[in-house]
Amino acid sequence: MVITAKKIYQTIEEIRARAPVVHNITNYVAMNTSANALLAIGASPVMAHAEEEMEEMVGISAALVINIGTLSEAWTSSMFEAAHQARMRGIPVVLDPVGAGATSYRTQTAKELISSEPPTIIRGNASEIMALFDEKTKTKGVDSAASSHDAVKIAKKISADNNCVVCISGETDYVVQGDKVIKIHNGHALMTRVTGLGCTASALCGAFAAVEKNPQFAVAEAMAVMGIAGEMAARKADGPGSLQMHFLDILYALNQDDIARLLKIEE
Amino acid sequence: MVITAKKIYQTIEEIRARAPVVHNITNYVAMNTSANALLAIGASPVMAHAEEEMEEMVGISAALVINIGTLSEAWTSSMFEAAHQARMRGIPVVLDPVGAGATSYRTQTAKELISSEPPTIIRGNASEIMALFDEKTKTKGVDSAASSHDAVKIAKKISADNNCVVCISGETDYVVQGDKVIKIHNGHALMTRVTGLGCTASALCGAFAAVEKNPQFAVAEAMAVMGIAGEMAARKADGPGSLQMHFLDILYALNQDDIARLLKIEE
Amino acid sequence: MVITAKKIYQTIEEIRARAPVVHNITNYVAMNTSANALLAIGASPVMAHAEEEMEEMVGISAALVINIGTLSEAWTSSMFEAAHQARMRGIPVVLDPVGAGATSYRTQTAKELISSEPPTIIRGNASEIMALFDEKTKTKGVDSAASSHDAVKIAKKISADNNCVVCISGETDYVVQGDKVIKIHNGHALMTRVTGLGCTASALCGAFAAVEKNPQFAVAEAMAVMGIAGEMAARKADGPGSLQMHFLDILYALNQDDIARLLKIEE
Repeated sequence: MVITAKKIYQTIEEIRARAPVVHNITNYVAMNTSANALLAIGASPVMAHAEEEMEEMVGISAALVINIGTLSEAWTSSMFEAAHQARMRGIPVVLDPVGAGATSYRTQTAKELISSEPPTIIRGNASEIMALFDEKTKTKGVDSAASSHDAVKIAKKISADNNCVVCISGETDYVVQGDKVIKIHNGHALMTRVTGLGCTASALCGAFAAVEKNPQFAVAEAMAVMGIAGEMAARKADGPGSLQMHFLDILYALNQDDIARLLKIEE
Repeated sequence: MVITAKKIYQTIEEIRARAPVVHNITNYVAMNTSANALLAIGASPVMAHAEEEMEEMVGISAALVINIGTLSEAWTSSMFEAAHQARMRGIPVVLDPVGAGATSYRTQTAKELISSEPPTIIRGNASEIMALFDEKTKTKGVDSAASSHDAVKIAKKISADNNCVVCISGETDYVVQGDKVIKIHNGHALMTRVTGLGCTASALCGAFAAVEKNPQFAVAEAMAVMGIAGEMAARKADGPGSLQMHFLDILYALNQDDIARLLKIEE
Repeated sequence: MVITAKKIYQTIEEIRARAPVVHNITNYVAMNTSANALLAIGASPVMAHAEEEMEEMVGISAALVINIGTLSEAWTSSMFEAAHQARMRGIPVVLDPVGAGATSYRTQTAKELISSEPPTIIRGNASEIMALFDEKTKTKGVDSAASSHDAVKIAKKISADNNCVVCISGETDYVVQGDKVIKIHNGHALMTRVTGLGCTASALCGAFAAVEKNPQFAVAEAMAVMGIAGEMAARKADGPGSLQMHFLDILYALNQDDIARLLKIEE
């Protein structure tokens, strides 16, 4: 067991102490929520998408998060440029392929980003991750128990091919690096009724990867914190509106005891 | 009386069971709020505006919502393309002509959308609906009791000319199809102090139209649910900040008894 | 002492009575938050960025707020056009140079806006304001007590050169017009953990400047109201999520007694 409550909390304290700049090129829906979550955990969010400032903005950042949730041509070229700059500088890059598999435009853009500027971390749900692999896989659809198994198999291949961490989020989160899989069983069903929490998870992966140099540990820790804060928020919430509010409050005040009490991780 | 609490609740249960995909091309201000309201009622929101993916995205959707609240050229062509695709496929289209009458750019774009790709439903406030009719009407302004009367007259003409449902929202909501008018007297004044609740109403019209095949009933039911959830939220709220939060919680948990207790409808 | 609780409350009552239209060209992250704050205080927010409607939109507005937080070329030309239209009409213009100093694209755009269409009010944090002055200043960085002193010196020069009010926000807010400095000591550290509150402050400066003709008074009053509402919200909040919610509720219900009890101003 490497990832204990103590280790997770040390990473949080590191984020709070260093306030790493996390540069986000993300979708319009989740921008506010992601920025607030990054501030709550102690990071310094920056949202910027103009190609004119990609080099300088990446230059002052400790992590880059690319999210294709509301994709368009103008933003795509900035995503490639930012990913390139980050790779040159050795800054961790998180890719959230929102909606890959839903339209070929998204699937293609995500695949091209991965092949031309391999990210450090890819985080998505099972169908998004499977869509990144090949067209044949996609047509099988994503359902039931079989799909987790299939998705993890595909995640392992994507991880090996691109030397990156692949996270499949869902009821169980699978954090895959090559053949090593870390499973996180935290989280709450009500979280799926709040928009942008998947995007927020990717943003937190950026903050954790900014201070924890092992990217698989960073992602596992970030996903555990998401799930734990979500569980605590769901317990206080009357519905998805108050869950979002409590989630930010809890992220801000999260301590080691909370994590120790709730963490459900399998390494 | 066709639209009873029982009927409205059946539609909500249908939304919760089928989780229809509602494709939104909407403004930056209301995206997060609209997505959260759609998730809270049980639908599956998608936000996408790139022309490259309009055909595929509409192809997986059960309703399309077009909102011109933060209009620009790049998005306009996607709106036309999406509306066209939706019409080809027989998917209901909701148009929210935000700010029609405020600038000729908005008025013209809304009118062109209506004439080239007639929507199933148009929802706006009295001055927006009146602006869609003709320039002379506009100059009369929108004030006092007279305006409701005038706006409903114009709504009837727009409805007849374009074979669509026209909803004028306000203290009383008028849901017009040809000569038939359904009035809803739910809602609360504090709702006007929260941004994006009109846009949210249009998004919910999309979710309801995705499962209720009579578009006038769909709109009347959606507007009643908006008003009832708003009243319940206002009762718990200390101001517009907490109203927004309670509104989402209440939408998520709304049951038939709440609707039966509060519904004020005139058919 | 000119700016008393009574005077501030009179301005709020004027905003509530007249509901001035405040036109915002602002960033994606803060749009929803800014619109909600403007509605809560009693103003009528409009968000619009298409060049096609700048002239008409400014024409119906009582103030213009330009915020470069998520800058790109398409929006920049609308910012110049809107600022020009506002200046022609004598409508107050607030400029929020978000991220000036972080990238040269932002610094340059902000400087060009100031030199070609001088705003009525510039509001930013110390490093943003210092970045507007010259490259040499920038390299000294912004830290410790010295920086406030340096920033105020620079603010005085920018104010004199452009005949505008310059507000440096921080633990103490400095509202500078020529040599006259008003200091506000309200606010709470938890506010820095909520995204978009700086942008919200600029939006409120617009609402206050729409009804209070002395721009230095308008800014001092708006910043005092921000700080007081923030303090009251922080007292009720469990973290940044609930702070945002309480902030809007408090802004909506703010009365003269609250202001009198908490106001900390130095003229």
